[in-house]
Amino acid sequence: MKELTVDLGERSYPIYIGEGILQQIGELFAKHGIGKGSPLLIVTDSHVAEHHLGDVVSRLEEAGYTTTSYTVSAGEKSKSLSVLEDVVSAALQAGLDRKSTVVALGGGVVGDLAGFVAASYMRGIRFVQIPTTILAHDSSVGGKVAVNHPLAKNIIGAFHQPELVLYDTATLRTLPDREVKAGLSEMIKHGLIWDAEFTAWLEENAQKLVSLDQEALQYGLYFGCKVKSIVVSQDEKENGLRAILNLGHTIGHALEAVSGYNKLLHGEAISIGMVGAAKLAIRLGHPEHIYTVTKRILQAFGLPVSVPADLDTDAIMNAMMHDKKFSEGNMIYIIPTEIGKVEINKNVSAAWVREVVEQLKQEV
Amino acid sequence: MKELTVDLGERSYPIYIGEGILQQIGELFAKHGIGKGSPLLIVTDSHVAEHHLGDVVSRLEEAGYTTTSYTVSAGEKSKSLSVLEDVVSAALQAGLDRKSTVVALGGGVVGDLAGFVAASYMRGIRFVQIPTTILAHDSSVGGKVAVNHPLAKNIIGAFHQPELVLYDTATLRTLPDREVKAGLSEMIKHGLIWDAEFTAWLEENAQKLVSLDQEALQYGLYFGCKVKSIVVSQDEKENGLRAILNLGHTIGHALEAVSGYNKLLHGEAISIGMVGAAKLAIRLGHPEHIYTVTKRILQAFGLPVSVPADLDTDAIMNAMMHDKKFSEGNMIYIIPTEIGKVEINKNVSAAWVREVVEQLKQEV
Repeated sequence: MKELTVDLGERSYPIYIGEGILQQIGELFAKHGIGKGSPLLIVTDSHVAEHHLGDVVSRLEEAGYTTTSYTVSAGEKSKSLSVLEDVVSAALQAGLDRKSTVVALGGGVVGDLAGFVAASYMRGIRFVQIPTTILAHDSSVGGKVAVNHPLAKNIIGAFHQPELVLYDTATLRTLPDREVKAGLSEMIKHGLIWDAEFTAWLEENAQKLVSLDQEALQYGLYFGCKVKSIVVSQDEKENGLRAILNLGHTIGHALEAVSGYNKLLHGEAISIGMVGAAKLAIRLGHPEHIYTVTKRILQAFGLPVSVPADLDTDAIMNAMMHDKKFSEGNMIYIIPTEIGKVEINKNVSAAWVREVVEQLKQEV
Repeated sequence: MKELTVDLGERSYPIYIGEGILQQIGELFAKHGIGKGSPLLIVTDSHVAEHHLGDVVSRLEEAGYTTTSYTVSAGEKSKSLSVLEDVVSAALQAGLDRKSTVVALGGGVVGDLAGFVAASYMRGIRFVQIPTTILAHDSSVGGKVAVNHPLAKNIIGAFHQPELVLYDTATLRTLPDREVKAGLSEMIKHGLIWDAEFTAWLEENAQKLVSLDQEALQYGLYFGCKVKSIVVSQDEKENGLRAILNLGHTIGHALEAVSGYNKLLHGEAISIGMVGAAKLAIRLGHPEHIYTVTKRILQAFGLPVSVPADLDTDAIMNAMMHDKKFSEGNMIYIIPTEIGKVEINKNVSAAWVREVVEQLKQEV
């Protein structure tokens, strides 16, 4: 079992990564101050419930916890205020009080939704993340929680740090192959923004990671979480540095929005976005190999590198203008300046971005 | 113009109280860091909009701010997730970004709703309170913001401190007489929990306050805000001391819930609740005059002191059991031990409370 700490002063918390660690869930909860006097609410989705909910509930009950669970439909649609209201109904009916804990058992959607329930229920109660996807190694670190609004993703939310994160890599075996690859896209991003050596390791171990080799997977998740936690520790509320985590996300979010959130998985969209950012880097005069290497790695993982030809460039540009990362009208892009290094560039011209989006449709 | 500071470290903020201070809104906003580069969203209700919105908008626009306003229906029903979603739509359409500010122009409902929009929009943007009721002298200090859930009041919310509070006492002239009195009920509470001398001053000045004498009103609001801010400074997140602000609220909230939130105003309900707390105090062996004086003051302001006979005692008791102030099954009451002093008593028996509720139906 690997362990690391997200260092946030009095809001610091540990991440445990290992195969089968859910077997110790009772001990780990107790060790980190989750009391047995108030009920827990486990929030999960229909896919995850099938594989893991029964096990988690019975282990927690055996350890002396009172639990209630609430299962939402799998998919992004559950990140809404109306589902939030339903989860709060369940919390009230189960008698959750200010000493209770919300447990997110699932991927990013469940983590974001359950996290915002924990952040806002009685103005904030405790929260534990049990990620069951690779993508969630990203979203479960850093305390960003939110639901969507019909007009914008993640626009209603909070910064709410969990008490602990339990990453049982055995749960990843039930993931479809496409989701495995899309999840690894965020892991690659953590390499590209922070560490050339880790990036090289990722390329070498692409096949092992895609096939869920446990040793490679645990190391990759550990290092990915570590990069994220170092960045978050230095900028909890996203006032500066934390923006680097958005490498590939500006174009990526726009592609997700325009394709209606069901054609491209998040990790696939940011894979294309990272190629776009690399192309912008070259346009800005940074070395050509940034683009070559970025694309080669993503392709080694079987991730997409081109914008689907049927997506309208104007619509993509419009969606980008609405992205919340544009502050006071400036266009802010995360631009790689080397493999393992990025800069926050506040002066990227919209014309260049449009050019790159057009080029990305031709990418092979 | 009176000024005081709510002392919360880096989240400290000033409260300005005075007749006509909205004339200086532009300067005061600029002085406290509200930038002109990002749009403001003014949230208000249909009653307040009629009297004050035009003036606030034109003064802010004259001062160089870009504003949008969103008017909700007056009344508690606007404190819902669905209205929150509508306000967020308005914020998105107006292009509010992370440097924008939400301005709450109104009473407690508007302050709570707009405050929670500010707390959650893009995970938290700036917020200014412009209270237009006496009751809001209480709710605008301390950063507690929330919306209601069909099953419970204020259950979805946050702690989100404003940048400043502008209390223009001229706006209070448009309040109906019954709301003036109900608002003064929280002012009396601030005397009863903290300061015998202020409590005596309140009794002497009851007529002046009820008739909105500007000098008395400004002093009363100043002192009420000051008590609240001292308590909040010592316990921002309600882990201990802050509970004393709930004097009269346990019974009061239950009365509001059982009467369907339209028969009794909040201030009226807690007036009755404070008489109940005084009766419990006597039952616990504290001096008899606590009850006599509490009741005499509230009656001097024309506030109700008895539970409406048609409210069912079982229903009132049930509503109390659901109150979020009961943690892990204990019943916590704020009990006066002297005029100007209270204790947090965690061992009040439900049987005594029932007895007191029954007696409150006979109170004259």
